[in-house]
Amino acid sequence: MMTKVKVQPLLVNYKTLEEFKRFKEYGHQELAMFEDLQSNIVENDSESPFFGIYFGNALVARMSLYRVSKKYDHYFQPPQDYLELWKLEVLPDYQGQGFGKALVDFAKSFQLPIKTNPRVKSHNFWEKMGFQKAMYDVERDLGENPLIWLPSGVEEREV
Amino acid sequence: MMTKVKVQPLLVNYKTLEEFKRFKEYGHQELAMFEDLQSNIVENDSESPFFGIYFGNALVARMSLYRVSKKYDHYFQPPQDYLELWKLEVLPDYQGQGFGKALVDFAKSFQLPIKTNPRVKSHNFWEKMGFQKAMYDVERDLGENPLIWLPSGVEEREV
Repeated sequence: MMTKVKVQPLLVNYKTLEEFKRFKEYGHQELAMFEDLQSNIVENDSESPFFGIYFGNALVARMSLYRVSKKYDHYFQPPQDYLELWKLEVLPDYQGQGFGKALVDFAKSFQLPIKTNPRVKSHNFWEKMGFQKAMYDVERDLGENPLIWLPSGVEEREV
Repeated sequence: MMTKVKVQPLLVNYKTLEEFKRFKEYGHQELAMFEDLQSNIVENDSESPFFGIYFGNALVARMSLYRVSKKYDHYFQPPQDYLELWKLEVLPDYQGQGFGKALVDFAKSFQLPIKTNPRVKSHNFWEKMGFQKAMYDVERDLGENPLIWLPSGVEEREV
């Protein structure tokens, strides 16, 4: 039996930030959100770049998604707005149930090209999701391992 | 007794690329260098952005270092050329002997600001090296955890 999976935007509040601590890729971004909330720089329940999947009351999968403006696009042809996807992560007890795919499908539903910079070990997953290795260019990519997804009508830019 | 440590530029050749396979952070960059060498896009023994430390004949530590032009500087005040440092890694059997510090000291010797995006778990090391957390800005930093080092006379840019 398939569980019905709902991807939803995550709001900045103490409950969400507490749940983020269970994910491995907890870094400056989460700390900055916490500090902004504490010092009232952002309001409680303001928008975040995160989307997630709840199982009951618990956040079990998440990703960050940011729309990069066309003027900063160095990857696609024709140049256009694209989505940068990062921190895609499913908690260990919930892996293998399609939650990762549900998040990626959600990102694809915007019909914009997507770029991500995953750990090298996760390449099998990304290949199954239809992502391909971008040509590597040191000046542009530095320490990244860029993978891209192209909706129809979009090509990779030559570097 | 202190071993005398020499940091040297690494040239693109099959021997170096074979040694790179022993490092955990092996990714698109190394594969691209290999392909470029195979297809004669780059010459044997051409320059790479890598620097390393040999112990006898074996490469035991390395980092990548790239000079980013002032016009792309979004981190420092006044805006200036800076170094992006990535893939700093010491092979497990050679850790705790100052090889990591020797690489960082080499990077600092250019007297340019340095930016790096390390794994969260390595923050103790970077703090000891005098690096500090950059203010996090989602639009600029996306999935990064930027750390910076400021030579005298340079400040962090407000975001």
